Amino acid sequence: MPNTINFDRVCLIGVGLIGSSLVLAIRENNLSKEIIGFDLNDKALIQAKSLGIIDEARNSLDEAVENADLIIIATPVGASSEIIHTLSKNKTTALIIDVGSVKATIVDAAQAVGKDLTIVPCHPIAGTEQSGPEAGFARLFNDRWCIVTPLPRTDDAYRRATETAAALWRAVGSKVEIMDAAHHDLALAVTSHLPHLIAFTLVGAADDLENVNEAEIVKYSAGGFRDFTRIAASDPVMWRDVFLGNKEAVLEVLGRFSEELSILQRAIRWGDAQTLEQSFSRGRRLRRAIVEAGQETGKPNFGRDR
Amino acid sequence: MPNTINFDRVCLIGVGLIGSSLVLAIRENNLSKEIIGFDLNDKALIQAKSLGIIDEARNSLDEAVENADLIIIATPVGASSEIIHTLSKNKTTALIIDVGSVKATIVDAAQAVGKDLTIVPCHPIAGTEQSGPEAGFARLFNDRWCIVTPLPRTDDAYRRATETAAALWRAVGSKVEIMDAAHHDLALAVTSHLPHLIAFTLVGAADDLENVNEAEIVKYSAGGFRDFTRIAASDPVMWRDVFLGNKEAVLEVLGRFSEELSILQRAIRWGDAQTLEQSFSRGRRLRRAIVEAGQETGKPNFGRDR
Repeated sequence: MPNTINFDRVCLIGVGLIGSSLVLAIRENNLSKEIIGFDLNDKALIQAKSLGIIDEARNSLDEAVENADLIIIATPVGASSEIIHTLSKNKTTALIIDVGSVKATIVDAAQAVGKDLTIVPCHPIAGTEQSGPEAGFARLFNDRWCIVTPLPRTDDAYRRATETAAALWRAVGSKVEIMDAAHHDLALAVTSHLPHLIAFTLVGAADDLENVNEAEIVKYSAGGFRDFTRIAASDPVMWRDVFLGNKEAVLEVLGRFSEELSILQRAIRWGDAQTLEQSFSRGRRLRRAIVEAGQETGKPNFGRDR
Repeated sequence: MPNTINFDRVCLIGVGLIGSSLVLAIRENNLSKEIIGFDLNDKALIQAKSLGIIDEARNSLDEAVENADLIIIATPVGASSEIIHTLSKNKTTALIIDVGSVKATIVDAAQAVGKDLTIVPCHPIAGTEQSGPEAGFARLFNDRWCIVTPLPRTDDAYRRATETAAALWRAVGSKVEIMDAAHHDLALAVTSHLPHLIAFTLVGAADDLENVNEAEIVKYSAGGFRDFTRIAASDPVMWRDVFLGNKEAVLEVLGRFSEELSILQRAIRWGDAQTLEQSFSRGRRLRRAIVEAGQETGKPNFGRDR
C-alpha cells in the first residue's frame, strides 16, 4: 500500500509525551507540511516550540485548529469532552483523532456532537514513565499496537476517515487493530489500568510503613520492588483521568485480582505449597509469549543491568 | 583494605542462578583454588561442569564438602535446614554461608546445631527472572546490597567468620549491611516478597479471564502488564519456599497493601479525583530516589526499547 498520508496542517492539542512523540513521528516521516501546537501549560508549549516538535504555538484552541486538516487530541482524557464541544462550535472539517487510554467516554462525547465533526478515537499502546514534550521521541510507536475504536457510523466519509487514521498509525510504525470501545476499555483495564493501579498501590503501601524506612526500601529495591516503580512514576493527572473514565471495567478486573490474591494469601497462611507452586508456574509461559510477540525484551532484568 | 579472601576449596550446594553467579564471581576474582559442585538435579550439575562454573561435580553432599573451607548453600530455602543437619553430622570446619531470601528459618536451623558449625546467613539482593546454571554471570552482585544476618554468637571465631563472609561479598562487588534476621525478613517482605506475590497474582488473574483472551493480553501488554511478567517469570519452587518461610512478615505487609488498595478502590468507585491524584504522585519521588541510589536505570522503559 503506497503511503497516501499527506496533511497540510496538523494541530496538536496537548504537547505531552504521546502528542509530542506522534508529531515527531509525523515530522520524521514527512506526513505533514506544518505542525501547530496548543497547550494550557504555557511552559510546555514554549518548550515544544523550542525543541522543534511544533512549528508554531497558538494561544487559543480556536486559533490553533484554523485550517488544520488533522487535529490530534493528546490531553488527559478528562479534558477531551470539553475540547470536542469547543471544536463542534468551531465547525472544523479536519479529521480529529485522540490518543486517550479510555475510549467509551470519547465515543460518547463524539456521538453527542453528531456528524458535524469527524472523530476517530484511537489508542496507541505505547508510552514511558516520563512526561512532557522533552520526553517525546519519534520511535515510540514502532512495533506497538494502536487500537482504533470507530464510532457506529456507516457513511462513506466516516469509513474513509477511519482508514486514514489507521494509515497514519501504520505510517509511524504501529500495527492497527479495530474494536469497539467497550471491549477496548475492558482489555486495557487488564493489560494497563489494573497494572498501574497495583503499582501505585504497592508504592503507596511502602511509602508509609512504620517499621521499614524509605532508605531501606531504596537500598533493597532490586529484590523486585524497583520494577513496580517504573509505571508508578507515570503522570498522576493522566492516570487519575483514566480511572475516573474507566471505572466499571477497572473495578471488574480488580475484583478478579482480589479473588486471586485471596487464594494465594490463604495458601500462604495454611502452608499450601502445591497451590503456590502451581500458581507461580504460569508466569513463565505468559512472559515467553509476550517476548515472542515482540512486545518485550527477552534480556534478563529487561537488559537494564548491562 | 587488602583482599584477604583466599579459599582452597569452595563447595557450592545448588548450581542455580545465584550459586553459579557467585562461584563465577569467585573464579573471576581468583578467590579460590578449586570449586566443587553438588546438586540434586543431575542435569544442572553436569551443565555447571561443562560450562566451567565448577571444576568438579560430586554425587553426594558428604563427598562434595570434603576438605572445603567455604561451603555455599544456594538451594531453595526449604532445603537448607536439612542440609545444615547433614553438615552437622559431617562435622565440617568450613565457613558456611547461604544466599536465601528468608533468614529467620536458617538462623533457627543454625542455632539448633550449636557451635559445631560456623554458619553466617547471607542474602544478596540480586537476581534475574531466569534460573539454572546457564543463567549465571559473575557481575550479578556488582553494586547490589548483600545483607548479612549473623547468629547471636559472641565468640571471636564467629566474629572473624562474619568478617570473612562480608569481605567475600565485597570482593564480588557488593555493598554489605548487617542486621538481625527478623528485620531482614520484614524489609524484604516489602521490597521483594510482596512485589513477587503481587506480580504472580496479576499474571494469574489475567490467565483465566473469560472475556479478554491471552492473545489480547500479549498484544497490549506494553500498556504496563509486561513489567509485571518479569518477576512473575521467576523460579516457582524458590518462591514457593520464600512464602512458606516468611509467612508472618508477608501476611503483615500484604495487609498494609490491601488497606491501600481498598482506599484507591473506593476513590475510583466514588470518583474521588483528589485522593487518586495525591496517591499517584508519590511514585515519582520514590523512583527518583532508587535511580539516584544506583539501584535502577533512569532510562525510560528500563532502556529496553532502544
